[in-house]
Amino acid sequence: MPKIETFPNRHPDRDYDIEITCPEFTSLCPKTGQPDFATLRIHYVPDRLCLELKSLKLYLFAYRNQGIFYEHVTNKMLDDLVAAVKPRRMTVEGSFSVRGGISTVVRAAYEARRPRKR
Amino acid sequence: MPKIETFPNRHPDRDYDIEITCPEFTSLCPKTGQPDFATLRIHYVPDRLCLELKSLKLYLFAYRNQGIFYEHVTNKMLDDLVAAVKPRRMTVEGSFSVRGGISTVVRAAYEARRPRKR
Amino acid sequence: MPKIETFPNRHPDRDYDIEITCPEFTSLCPKTGQPDFATLRIHYVPDRLCLELKSLKLYLFAYRNQGIFYEHVTNKMLDDLVAAVKPRRMTVEGSFSVRGGISTVVRAAYEARRPRKR
Amino acid sequence: MPKIETFPNRHPDRDYDIEITCPEFTSLCPKTGQPDFATLRIHYVPDRLCLELKSLKLYLFAYRNQGIFYEHVTNKMLDDLVAAVKPRRMTVEGSFSVRGGISTVVRAAYEARRPRKR
Amino acid sequence: MPKIETFPNRHPDRDYDIEITCPEFTSLCPKTGQPDFATLRIHYVPDRLCLELKSLKLYLFAYRNQGIFYEHVTNKMLDDLVAAVKPRRMTVEGSFSVRGGISTVVRAAYEARRPRKR
Amino acid sequence: MPKIETFPNRHPDRDYDIEITCPEFTSLCPKTGQPDFATLRIHYVPDRLCLELKSLKLYLFAYRNQGIFYEHVTNKMLDDLVAAVKPRRMTVEGSFSVRGGISTVVRAAYEARRPRKR
Amino acid sequence: MPKIETFPNRHPDRDYDIEITCPEFTSLCPKTGQPDFATLRIHYVPDRLCLELKSLKLYLFAYRNQGIFYEHVTNKMLDDLVAAVKPRRMTVEGSFSVRGGISTVVRAAYEARRPRKR
Amino acid sequence: MPKIETFPNRHPDRDYDIEITCPEFTSLCPKTGQPDFATLRIHYVPDRLCLELKSLKLYLFAYRNQGIFYEHVTNKMLDDLVAAVKPRRMTVEGSFSVRGGISTVVRAAYEARRPRKR
Amino acid sequence: MPKIETFPNRHPDRDYDIEITCPEFTSLCPKTGQPDFATLRIHYVPDRLCLELKSLKLYLFAYRNQGIFYEHVTNKMLDDLVAAVKPRRMTVEGSFSVRGGISTVVRAAYEARRPRKR
Amino acid sequence: MPKIETFPNRHPDRDYDIEITCPEFTSLCPKTGQPDFATLRIHYVPDRLCLELKSLKLYLFAYRNQGIFYEHVTNKMLDDLVAAVKPRRMTVEGSFSVRGGISTVVRAAYEARRPRKR
Repeated sequence: MPKIETFPNRHPDRDYDIEITCPEFTSLCPKTGQPDFATLRIHYVPDRLCLELKSLKLYLFAYRNQGIFYEHVTNKMLDDLVAAVKPRRMTVEGSFSVRGGISTVVRAAYEARRPRKR
Repeated sequence: MPKIETFPNRHPDRDYDIEITCPEFTSLCPKTGQPDFATLRIHYVPDRLCLELKSLKLYLFAYRNQGIFYEHVTNKMLDDLVAAVKPRRMTVEGSFSVRGGISTVVRAAYEARRPRKR
Repeated sequence: MPKIETFPNRHPDRDYDIEITCPEFTSLCPKTGQPDFATLRIHYVPDRLCLELKSLKLYLFAYRNQGIFYEHVTNKMLDDLVAAVKPRRMTVEGSFSVRGGISTVVRAAYEARRPRKR
Repeated sequence: MPKIETFPNRHPDRDYDIEITCPEFTSLCPKTGQPDFATLRIHYVPDRLCLELKSLKLYLFAYRNQGIFYEHVTNKMLDDLVAAVKPRRMTVEGSFSVRGGISTVVRAAYEARRPRKR
Repeated sequence: MPKIETFPNRHPDRDYDIEITCPEFTSLCPKTGQPDFATLRIHYVPDRLCLELKSLKLYLFAYRNQGIFYEHVTNKMLDDLVAAVKPRRMTVEGSFSVRGGISTVVRAAYEARRPRKR
Repeated sequence: MPKIETFPNRHPDRDYDIEITCPEFTSLCPKTGQPDFATLRIHYVPDRLCLELKSLKLYLFAYRNQGIFYEHVTNKMLDDLVAAVKPRRMTVEGSFSVRGGISTVVRAAYEARRPRKR
Repeated sequence: MPKIETFPNRHPDRDYDIEITCPEFTSLCPKTGQPDFATLRIHYVPDRLCLELKSLKLYLFAYRNQGIFYEHVTNKMLDDLVAAVKPRRMTVEGSFSVRGGISTVVRAAYEARRPRKR
Repeated sequence: MPKIETFPNRHPDRDYDIEITCPEFTSLCPKTGQPDFATLRIHYVPDRLCLELKSLKLYLFAYRNQGIFYEHVTNKMLDDLVAAVKPRRMTVEGSFSVRGGISTVVRAAYEARRPRKR
Repeated sequence: MPKIETFPNRHPDRDYDIEITCPEFTSLCPKTGQPDFATLRIHYVPDRLCLELKSLKLYLFAYRNQGIFYEHVTNKMLDDLVAAVKPRRMTVEGSFSVRGGISTVVRAAYEARRPRKR
Repeated sequence: MPKIETFPNRHPDRDYDIEITCPEFTSLCPKTGQPDFATLRIHYVPDRLCLELKSLKLYLFAYRNQGIFYEHVTNKMLDDLVAAVKPRRMTVEGSFSVRGGISTVVRAAYEARRPRKR
């Protein structure tokens, strides 16, 4: 996977929210090989680092021809982003489009063990 | 009823949400024999198992020619899904379409006795 | 008023929600005799009984030519429905349409003294 | 039926449009006696007379407890309004709310034999 | 198929439109046996007869367990309705819900050979 | 009334459209003295002059405490604007807000006798 | 200012909500003399008295030609309404329309010192 | 490219419309190699053949890793579909998502030289 | 102004439409120096050339600190784009945001003298 | 930067909310020099001072040709506004428009150390 890049948070003394919406995520179904489409939402409170958006775009692009399940892609993305950005809190939500008349949303959250006091 | 199938949850160490929306549910009214239509929403936190969507589709399809009341179908579906998926928490909501100028939503929830600590 | 009928709740061991929406309520203004229109929402947790929808429709129909104020009709409906259904909790909300450039929503709630433990 | 009143058109030298929307029409189903609800739209080009809105409201109110079919009420209203207002052109449209999962719109139009030249 | 019933048009001297919307149509896919869902819209100008809605509901219900293609069901419905109602003009439109990420609308129209002069 | 001001059209060799929307018009009902509210839309093809918006705002403001009927205000505004701007074509539309459950739109148009050839 | 009138609350034994929406409020800007427009929302729990809507309409009408700031009109209205209605709780919210590309909402709340026990 | 498959039109005696919407199209930008996303709409009147949807899905999937411009993909798709389906009329429309703050729709149409008489 | 660039139209044998939407246009008011905001829509049928989007973005960017009236910017943009792209037909529409409670749309069109036959 | 002006809060004895929405914010990307667009929302509880809107408009205008990152502009604006208005509580939220298929919201909040008791 491409490296998720970061830049220094200039306001680390304050808990603040960053919400990122990517309506153009696509991967493949690991069973059928057919394309899946999703809107991803990433919501985090930065600590020392902020997520660099261009590298996020390339990271998401890397899933394009990968077969991966809804539940797994959402949790793996949370793990990868937490590892790179080391946020105080982070949520990743994937809204996957209709398959067989059924749509699915998967939502996973991370909270740092010793959060800074607000 | 067709068997509700599951697959192992690869991220059991984390409480995370899965929301499934099925706008194409139909059954029969047990009084009049006329068709009823609903949107079903299933919301759960998996423990060791995740709900397999294709078997869910077949399970829902099995109600197509069955006469069953709104209140009963929602509660029975919760019971069947909890028995199969053994989730940490689960909600089933049925939004039934207008009959006699009146629409109805039924919402039932389950929470495991000893939930894993988040 | 027509009798509000009920049927036995088949899932009394579980607190669950039933939401009923009736966009076709009409009564008369007690001052001017002109028609009033409202959307009614009834939200309840059944105990031993569920509200039978056909009798609800006839009950609402009985207000058609009655002069009654917004505040009174919402509270009276809550009283009548609580008396018939004996729910664990119930809310009645009336959204009355624009009169003199002003629209009004009235919302009244009931909770049983000793609610069953969830 | 109450008389549909009119007032003189102060701009008879110009063809112009008047569109009236009444979302609060209700009558009874002639078969079941149950209430029907509709949004009525009246669209006309006045000749010598304009439709007085207060008398229209009373005229519509007069259908409240009358049993009448969708197709008939729309055509009858067009006949009554044309007789009273003698417009250059008029359309009456009734959008009736869902019954048995089916909604209906009825639309009828009138054009004067020798319309004034625009 | 159940008989499509009609009643006499009380206003045959006037060309007027009737639009009927049925968002609760369901049939089966003739290939997979899986359920298909559609919203049907019927738009016609009656001649001597109007379409009776309760019989339409039963007619639509008869497709519930029949395997039939989108293109065929729309054209067949137009043929059946034209044969029963003998309208001056009629359109049938079926909006079928998403399958494999693709949704489909089929629209077919009929016009009587010698339409009455408007 | 305040003077409607204009400025020279820099592109008189081309027929082009200007659409102006004013959602904040208010006048008084000449019968009851109560306030009326409307959204006004002015649509024109300029000839030698364009409508200056600040003077339009003041012109509309001048109706604030004037009692005037819907039909009259729309036609008078068209007359006043045509007199000031001398457009190739102009439409004035007033969408008046709900009174007694009824809303009204009045729409009047002007076309110059010898329009420039497009 | 016109007197805000009230009528006795017939259900003082129950805390219930009344929400009133007035999309047709207008006053003048105290600096420029130009009209301001707002949607007002009044939300209260009545104690012994309910707010009479016709007198509210006249009260709001009295601001039509008064120059008053957004922050002040919202707070003053709360003070006047609390003085007249003596509610258990009340909120007044004014949503003022766009000026200079900026829109403003002001929201003020009152709670009686010794609220009745629910 | 995968073969676009067809099946016989059972109603060739009637001109009727088929509208297909595919919100899940993706290809690559030929300049930057970055993914592009579009909603495709195909609208046609069949002659002897209808477009088989599963083969359409595979045909669209084949663009996933191809670099191609908006204008070209829309026109090429029209050429390929016309060659396979030989329709009486066909339109292909691609709505491409925002790039650099700009979104683009491309729409191309085909009409057979000697259309069958309606 | 930056040069509007083009690239060869690969499908000049066919009249087809290209619609471009730019919701992020901003210039200055020539009177007050304050910023104006607009959504621009460009709609054209290419002849030998297509409009290159990156150069369009830079062209629009060049208005950022220029004082220019709504009517003029729309017409000038049409002139500049027609000169660069030499289309068969082109429309430019600017939807300018609310100023003083009034919003404005300006729409100008060009058609080549001897359009190719469709 | 232009000075953010204030005026005295006439209701300092009451905690009340002021919400300001500015959909017309634009700055430059510090990397590419290209324009960024955002909707800003400022939400505060005034103490002794209220934010004067005209000076806010000029303050926002001052960012027009400045290169500044999303995270920084939101936090800096909060710092500047808190310094000028000394509110009891304040939130600044910037919703930045789509870049590379990704949109971003940044939200930062301030609370005075010793808030007045409500």
